[in-house]
Amino acid sequence: MAQGCYLPFMVDLHAATQGLSDAFGDRLLTSDSARAHYAQTEGHHSFPAPDLVVCPATISEVQDAVRMAAKAGLPIIPYGAGTSLEGNAAAVQGGLCIDLSRMTAIKEVRAEDLLCVVEPGVTREQLNSELRSTGLFFPVDPGANATLCGMASTRASGTTTVRYGSMRDNVLALKVVTADGELITAGSRARKSAAGYDLTHLFMGAEGTLGIIVEATLRLHGQPDTILAATWDFETLEGAINTVIATIQCGIPIARMELLDPSAIVACNAFSGLGLPVRPTLFLEFHGTAESTTQQLDLVRALGETEGGGELRFASETEDRNRLWKARHSALPSARALIPGAIVWTTDICVPISSLADAIGLVQREVAAAGLTAPILGHVGDGNFHTLFVLPPGDHEAWAKAKTINEMMIHFALSVGGTCTGEHGIGIGKRQSLLREHGTESLATMRRIKDALDPRGIMNPGKIFLD
Amino acid sequence: MAQGCYLPFMVDLHAATQGLSDAFGDRLLTSDSARAHYAQTEGHHSFPAPDLVVCPATISEVQDAVRMAAKAGLPIIPYGAGTSLEGNAAAVQGGLCIDLSRMTAIKEVRAEDLLCVVEPGVTREQLNSELRSTGLFFPVDPGANATLCGMASTRASGTTTVRYGSMRDNVLALKVVTADGELITAGSRARKSAAGYDLTHLFMGAEGTLGIIVEATLRLHGQPDTILAATWDFETLEGAINTVIATIQCGIPIARMELLDPSAIVACNAFSGLGLPVRPTLFLEFHGTAESTTQQLDLVRALGETEGGGELRFASETEDRNRLWKARHSALPSARALIPGAIVWTTDICVPISSLADAIGLVQREVAAAGLTAPILGHVGDGNFHTLFVLPPGDHEAWAKAKTINEMMIHFALSVGGTCTGEHGIGIGKRQSLLREHGTESLATMRRIKDALDPRGIMNPGKIFLD
Repeated sequence: MAQGCYLPFMVDLHAATQGLSDAFGDRLLTSDSARAHYAQTEGHHSFPAPDLVVCPATISEVQDAVRMAAKAGLPIIPYGAGTSLEGNAAAVQGGLCIDLSRMTAIKEVRAEDLLCVVEPGVTREQLNSELRSTGLFFPVDPGANATLCGMASTRASGTTTVRYGSMRDNVLALKVVTADGELITAGSRARKSAAGYDLTHLFMGAEGTLGIIVEATLRLHGQPDTILAATWDFETLEGAINTVIATIQCGIPIARMELLDPSAIVACNAFSGLGLPVRPTLFLEFHGTAESTTQQLDLVRALGETEGGGELRFASETEDRNRLWKARHSALPSARALIPGAIVWTTDICVPISSLADAIGLVQREVAAAGLTAPILGHVGDGNFHTLFVLPPGDHEAWAKAKTINEMMIHFALSVGGTCTGEHGIGIGKRQSLLREHGTESLATMRRIKDALDPRGIMNPGKIFLD
Repeated sequence: MAQGCYLPFMVDLHAATQGLSDAFGDRLLTSDSARAHYAQTEGHHSFPAPDLVVCPATISEVQDAVRMAAKAGLPIIPYGAGTSLEGNAAAVQGGLCIDLSRMTAIKEVRAEDLLCVVEPGVTREQLNSELRSTGLFFPVDPGANATLCGMASTRASGTTTVRYGSMRDNVLALKVVTADGELITAGSRARKSAAGYDLTHLFMGAEGTLGIIVEATLRLHGQPDTILAATWDFETLEGAINTVIATIQCGIPIARMELLDPSAIVACNAFSGLGLPVRPTLFLEFHGTAESTTQQLDLVRALGETEGGGELRFASETEDRNRLWKARHSALPSARALIPGAIVWTTDICVPISSLADAIGLVQREVAAAGLTAPILGHVGDGNFHTLFVLPPGDHEAWAKAKTINEMMIHFALSVGGTCTGEHGIGIGKRQSLLREHGTESLATMRRIKDALDPRGIMNPGKIFLD
C-alpha cells in the first residue's frame, strides 16, 4: 500500500486499517485503483492518493471513521463530488479519505418553511430535480454538479449569486462531525438568529479543516413565474463590462449576468455548438413576473445600448435556456478541448464592482502579451471572474507565464480591496495569497481557531495554512 | 471607587487607573456619576457600573486601552449606544468599559461600489442622514438608534430584514481589536469571498467576547424609487398572521411586514397619537418602482382579504410614513408608558414561518391567563416577534409569571427548530437558553474558540457562556 508524501504524526496505519475493515467491510477501499480515483479532481493540482478510503452510510459511521482515524493519528480528508479546483480535497499527507457521496438522502423538504435538509452526498442537480414538483428550487449554482455540503464547505457561489446570494446566504444550519468524532449542530431553522457564535459560517469555507459537514439545512426559493434568458454580444469587452457595472449600480435584480470573452465564446461554440458571434458576450437571465422581467430587461438594454451592445438573442423555450446554461457550465471541458491533452488551470478573483473593467482588462492584456490560450469568464455581476489557463502539461514556459498572471490577478484584487478567491477557496493553491490578503495577525487568529478545534491537526491537513 | 460584584482575576486596578489616566486624561471617567451611566441600558437587567470608563478617539487608542487593561487583568466591556436588551454590555464583573461613541467618522462612502466604512460610534440614523443625498441607504433597522458596529456585534436585524437581510448579510468587512490589543481585519470589499475562515461572521454575534469591533465596511442599497406604506387591521390575530405566512410563502419581496397586537396598538396610539383601531394590525412597506410596488400590494391584499383584513390605510406622504415608523420604533417607551413607573422586559424568539401563528397564539393565551400587560409585536415576516412584559418593579408575582412565559416561548421556539433570540443576542439573559438550543457539544466548541482567542477571559466576561 502506497503512503502519502509525509506523515508528521505517530501513525498506526495497520491498526487503523484493521479497525476500519472490521467496521466497514468492503466499504473500506484499499486497492491502488480504487484509491487513485481520489487523487483526481477537476482542478490542475496533482497530489497523491489517500492511504485508505471509507464510504460511510450514516452520520454515526462518519463519527466511527473519524474516531478510528484520530486514534491512529491518521489525517482525515472529507470528499464529496471531487469538483473542487484548488486541491481542497487533496490527500497531501496521505491518510483516510471519507467519501460522503453514498449519503444521498434528501431527509426533509418543508415547503411551508422554504427549507430542506440534505445528507452530504446530495448534489445540487439531484436536489433541484427532486424539488421540481414543489414549485421551489435551490439557487446556488457553481456550474459543476457539486455536493451541497461540499459547496458549503468551500463557501461556494455561482451564476445566480448576484440575485440569490452564495452558500453563505442560503445555509440555515449544519451538522458537523468534529475532530474528536463528536456531532455538533450549528444554526437553526429560523431565518435569522442572534444566539451565540456563528458556527454555521465558521464551518462554511473551512474546507473540512475544522470538521466534516454531514448535514445541511438549506433555504429554498420559489421558482419564478417567468424566466427570460438571452445572450448579448458587444463591440468591446469594456462595453460589456460597463453594462454589468451600471446594472449592479442601478440595483436591477438580475438573476444571472455572466461574461464570456471571445476566447471563451470560441471554446463554447466548438464544444457546445452555440454558434454565437465571436465577440465579448453577456449571458443574462431575469426572474420574476412577465411584467417585471420585461421591465428589468428594458432597463438593462437601455444601459447596454450606449455601450455598443448588439442584438439580444433570446432563449425563449426552456430547452434553449437549458442548452445555453449547459454550455456556460461546460466552460471547463470546453476550454480543455481547445488544446488536445491540455490541463486547465482555473483561477478566480473577486473585486469591488467599480474595479472590474480594470481587472479584466489587465488580465486580457497580459494573456495576449504572453501568447497564452486563456478564456476569461465569470459571474461578473458579483465582481467575480475566472481565467482558464489552457496549458500543455510539459510546457514549463507557459505554466510559468500562467503563474505570473495568476499572481498579477491576485495582486490587483488585493490592491483594490478585493479577494484572492471569490468562490474556489484556498485549498493548497492559494495559501500564500490568503496570508497576503488577511495579514499575519488575522491568519494567527484563524490558526488559533484551528488549533483549538483540531489540536492534533488531523482534519484535512495542508489546506488553508502554510505550515 | 466602587468595584464590580466580583473579579476572578489578579487585578491591579490602581496601576491600570494610573496608566489610563496618563494616556487618556479627562477621557478616563472614574466618578460615580459618570460611571453610573454605563450601568443603564434599554433592557430590564440591572447590573453594576464598570470600575472605569475610557473614551478613545482612534483605533490605536482602543488598542492602548485594551493592552493596559489586559496587563492589569481588568475585564473589558465595549460600549456603543447602550441600546442592547439582554445586558450585552453589562459590567457584571466590573472592569474597564471602552465607550466607542466618540468615534463617529464615516470614513468613506464609495457609491460606485455600494459600500461605506464607519467608525464604531456611527449610528444607523447618522449614516442614513449622511447618505441621503447619494441615493443610497443602509437598510438594517432595529428600531433603536444603535451604533452600526454594536449592531454587528449583536448580529442585529430589524424591520427591513425580511427584504434586505440582517447585519449578517450587510457587513462586508470588519476591523477588530483582539484580547491582546492587536488589530486584525476580517473580510474584504468584494461582495463574496471563499478566502479562509469567515472571521467576519464569527465576530458578528460574539457580543464583544472575542474582540472589539472598531470599524465596519457595510453594503449599501439604492433608495427605492417608490415607497408604499400602509397599516392594515384584521378581525383576528390569526388572520393577520396567516396573511404574513402566505406573503412569505409566495415569495413577495415585501420590504417591511410588522405585526402589532391590540395591546401594542393601544400603547402606540397613546404614546404616538396614531389613532388606529384597536385590532391586530400589520404595518406594511413596499419598495420598488411605481408598478412593482402596486403589484406587490395587490398580491398581499388578495391574500389578506380572505383572512379578515379590513381597510388599508396608506401613509402616502413621506411625513406620514416617517410618523408611522417612528411610532413603531417607539414601541418600547410606548409600552413603558402603559404602567407608570414600570420596567419593560423585552424578549424575542424566531421560529420557522409555518409555526408563527402557534407561537404567537400560545403567548397571547398565556399573557391573558396570567393577567399581565404585555404587547406582542415584531418582524413577523422573518418569523421573529417580541413580547414586551410591562412590569411594576416590586411586583414579584408579575415578574415570576413573565419569567414562566418567557421560558415557554423559548421552549416552543426550540421545539419547532427555531431560536431563543432572533436579534437581541444572548448577553446575560439567555445563557441557559443558548445551551438548550445548541447543546453541550456545540457550546463546548464555542467555548474552545473563546478560550483560544481570549485565554484570560477578559473580553466582556459573563456573557454568552454560563460559567
